[in-house]
Amino acid sequence: MTYNLLKGKKGIIFGALNDMSIAWKVAERAVEEGAEIVLTNTPLAIRMGDMDKLAEKTNAKVIPADATSVEDLENLIKESMAHFGGQVDFILHSIGMSLNVRKNRPYDDLNYDYMMKSMDISAISFHKLLQTARKLDAISEWGSVVALSYIAAQRTFFGYNEMAEAKAMLESIARSFGYIYGRDKKIRINTISQSPTLTTAGQGIKGMSDLIDFSERMSPLGNASADDCADYCLVMFSDLTRKVTMQNLFHDGGFSQVGMSWRAMNVYSMSLEDMKNNMDKIID
Amino acid sequence: MTYNLLKGKKGIIFGALNDMSIAWKVAERAVEEGAEIVLTNTPLAIRMGDMDKLAEKTNAKVIPADATSVEDLENLIKESMAHFGGQVDFILHSIGMSLNVRKNRPYDDLNYDYMMKSMDISAISFHKLLQTARKLDAISEWGSVVALSYIAAQRTFFGYNEMAEAKAMLESIARSFGYIYGRDKKIRINTISQSPTLTTAGQGIKGMSDLIDFSERMSPLGNASADDCADYCLVMFSDLTRKVTMQNLFHDGGFSQVGMSWRAMNVYSMSLEDMKNNMDKIID
Amino acid sequence: MTYNLLKGKKGIIFGALNDMSIAWKVAERAVEEGAEIVLTNTPLAIRMGDMDKLAEKTNAKVIPADATSVEDLENLIKESMAHFGGQVDFILHSIGMSLNVRKNRPYDDLNYDYMMKSMDISAISFHKLLQTARKLDAISEWGSVVALSYIAAQRTFFGYNEMAEAKAMLESIARSFGYIYGRDKKIRINTISQSPTLTTAGQGIKGMSDLIDFSERMSPLGNASADDCADYCLVMFSDLTRKVTMQNLFHDGGFSQVGMSWRAMNVYSMSLEDMKNNMDKIID
Amino acid sequence: MTYNLLKGKKGIIFGALNDMSIAWKVAERAVEEGAEIVLTNTPLAIRMGDMDKLAEKTNAKVIPADATSVEDLENLIKESMAHFGGQVDFILHSIGMSLNVRKNRPYDDLNYDYMMKSMDISAISFHKLLQTARKLDAISEWGSVVALSYIAAQRTFFGYNEMAEAKAMLESIARSFGYIYGRDKKIRINTISQSPTLTTAGQGIKGMSDLIDFSERMSPLGNASADDCADYCLVMFSDLTRKVTMQNLFHDGGFSQVGMSWRAMNVYSMSLEDMKNNMDKIID
Repeated sequence: MTYNLLKGKKGIIFGALNDMSIAWKVAERAVEEGAEIVLTNTPLAIRMGDMDKLAEKTNAKVIPADATSVEDLENLIKESMAHFGGQVDFILHSIGMSLNVRKNRPYDDLNYDYMMKSMDISAISFHKLLQTARKLDAISEWGSVVALSYIAAQRTFFGYNEMAEAKAMLESIARSFGYIYGRDKKIRINTISQSPTLTTAGQGIKGMSDLIDFSERMSPLGNASADDCADYCLVMFSDLTRKVTMQNLFHDGGFSQVGMSWRAMNVYSMSLEDMKNNMDKIID
Repeated sequence: MTYNLLKGKKGIIFGALNDMSIAWKVAERAVEEGAEIVLTNTPLAIRMGDMDKLAEKTNAKVIPADATSVEDLENLIKESMAHFGGQVDFILHSIGMSLNVRKNRPYDDLNYDYMMKSMDISAISFHKLLQTARKLDAISEWGSVVALSYIAAQRTFFGYNEMAEAKAMLESIARSFGYIYGRDKKIRINTISQSPTLTTAGQGIKGMSDLIDFSERMSPLGNASADDCADYCLVMFSDLTRKVTMQNLFHDGGFSQVGMSWRAMNVYSMSLEDMKNNMDKIID
Repeated sequence: MTYNLLKGKKGIIFGALNDMSIAWKVAERAVEEGAEIVLTNTPLAIRMGDMDKLAEKTNAKVIPADATSVEDLENLIKESMAHFGGQVDFILHSIGMSLNVRKNRPYDDLNYDYMMKSMDISAISFHKLLQTARKLDAISEWGSVVALSYIAAQRTFFGYNEMAEAKAMLESIARSFGYIYGRDKKIRINTISQSPTLTTAGQGIKGMSDLIDFSERMSPLGNASADDCADYCLVMFSDLTRKVTMQNLFHDGGFSQVGMSWRAMNVYSMSLEDMKNNMDKIID
Repeated sequence: MTYNLLKGKKGIIFGALNDMSIAWKVAERAVEEGAEIVLTNTPLAIRMGDMDKLAEKTNAKVIPADATSVEDLENLIKESMAHFGGQVDFILHSIGMSLNVRKNRPYDDLNYDYMMKSMDISAISFHKLLQTARKLDAISEWGSVVALSYIAAQRTFFGYNEMAEAKAMLESIARSFGYIYGRDKKIRINTISQSPTLTTAGQGIKGMSDLIDFSERMSPLGNASADDCADYCLVMFSDLTRKVTMQNLFHDGGFSQVGMSWRAMNVYSMSLEDMKNNMDKIID
């Protein structure tokens, strides 16, 4: 069902690679809800992914940009404003990558050049985007910016590695810049802390599918899907959430608020039972 | 602007007293967005307030109920289901009252009978409502329940008194019942932690207007109004937030995430300056 | 090893039943560190438990008191002050009991009289204690009060039932009263959120031993024991933590900050593997 | 008073510049409590500060190291182990510096090279220290590491600038590395979130003295001093807190848990009163 929730709004969406991407879903749904959009990603990602298909489907302009380059961001924003004939109303930042994870460096053997690069791509790019937008006065009053995060910013998940630091920094930037941009221009900035989602990015994380199973059974409503997340992003871009800012919003079927669920415990207990039985055999 | 966001949905709204009430605004907006509603409050509040006007305007049925009485809640829910010809899709709990505040008992001289009653009205009523709804299978799958809270559940505000405990308990009930009701029936339960709002209830709190000024200057987007809150409630009742549950959602213009703002500090510093100057005079 | 950390200090310890009790360990260690103590519990608990042994060992006076009775608390505090010849320096509140758990009422079928009683015993008793102490000016400047809590105040653990609400309320009371008592008398009030511990009280919780196993493998340092907890209580009673107040301090080997550990995931994954294998068999 | 709390323990203390430094106080108190220490700072800070006096007073070895240089850290740790004849038991990380603050770049006009450097100095240095220690197996079982943080990691304070991100990252590193180092070697890692303290570092922050006044009146026990903080560090280094890890511990007289205090509100309200009076005059 559609509601015309974003009728007349204009937005920039970072990070759509293929139809598994959350950003992809957001783009589709935003347009269904009446928005016009610009799609962006790195030149490499655009070549490797299917953005052309998405652009066609959503009648979107594609403007390549490396989000770690202030120059690229300036160009992106200027071209977007030219394309729209004015300010944008919403932006989605869906960017994250860990070089140390890619290179299989464990958390206690990090390469610090990689780490700097990971922080730049996954967190500082968000500041660069906001600072550039602010300088070009690119976002309309009561505009809305969302970045995608993960609960590893609050709690340690083995194997998530330096992305924990990247997400902690990302959420901090949302708060710090949200204060300034809110006070000066009435623009709100939030992060959505999404369930683990099997996107192309998510596939790099060790033991991902078992974690997703655990997360599913811990969450009373199950994991939130990329489609669900797109709906929540729309809500945050709409005029119905104007006074929500500087927040990290958990969109996770309840996972963040559960210490142990009956369903997850059952799975866990089954192994304990087996271990005891095997122990008995060994002792026998 | 309206979006038909709640088209075909049916809901019960607790706590509308007069047009300053958040519940009043929620009722108006829910109906604008396509919902049918039942309004409820205590018989006394119905007599003292203007609910008839609201009922007429929103074409709502009024069913009196004391939310501390399980019997009344059963009756309310059964009558609502009869009225709607089936389950309800959303419920708003906007109920809170402190007897110790009313009777001017400071927090270190509480009357414990009053305290029990305050907890019953402001927090346990929420459990009673949920338990009754659960037993009568009164809420449809993917239904949504919201209760209104305040940041005093997390941090101490002088003069807020035992309502801090009531709100802490209320938010805990949202989590605990959200787990069960989510797992079993896909129903989500959240609290919205709203800016201080000058409702009839809010007027009982000591030094309220100065606190509202402080809150306004601390919040980059300013305090959220009752109208803003109504919009956020709609969003939480809509199908666009289906995977958000067990959360306490700050709806406060950013207040909760600010330690000190430039605008609030300026006011504070002005007094410090004065105090220093007066000190000088005294010393002279 | 001992340090004379509480040399010359006087304290009241609630809730020692037998040598599995955390309060029992706190009593022993406090005396080792140079404190004099009064022990208290309900008359029934004193009869059923081994408090006489503890009193002898710690050279403590025993004063029975039902912590839900303001009269009993007044008597306890007056007698303690008479015994010590002055104010007390520290108090431990280690009291919790859920009637609904005892009576096997699940969280969606609570008896509300039981619930009120559970809140009174497990949370409001803490307020009654503090208010009574405040009125009798029973705690010395820079004195310290600790209550024991559990992470269910923040996140839902299936089966923990209404104790979640009791602990949420308890922690709120620590904040609210900590503000007042700190401002007026320099007295600090904190809660320690302890690992699940197999005490007599803990034994009532459903599936406790499996949960303790999960908690052990989630916590990088393993669960904190009752002995560990006693040490942490001493630290909070000592003069070395004078500016720590209104806090909820996790004492849990790291559990609260872990989303998923490698060790716990291994156990969980083993079952998943089994389930897949069995699935194959069924499909075959 | 002293307790021999760190008898026989060996530690490394980063960040003592002069007798206003928290690290300075920690060094003094650690030695009073029976520890042997190594002091370290950058060569420049050692030249500019008074570390020689401290070294003499505490009978400490001074080993210069730039904490952003893995090579320097390796040298520091190796030399320390040679000096002590074995592993160290505790480490204090008290390092923070923002180039953008120094250069008066506001948060919406950051220089990103400066930002990278600020993150390296204030946050990543902590990871470098831990990774180096881990590789050299430099910390004894049940050893303890503390880094100093500030509540700006959770909430925005105007003027604190990019240090918010640095502290958020620092606290995340404590969690992530605390998980690994705890699981593998029983070593605990925590951050202490200290009241604003007028150290040489603190003097760079805009409007610092007014903020300290606000913080003082918000905190029921007043701001924690550098001396108080030293005591709390000792406690975290001692054997009495062995199961506390991955935590951010507020040491702030209660500030973090207060939304508004009566004392701070009085100062604030005085200005509001003045503003109203002046408004009247203008209107007249």
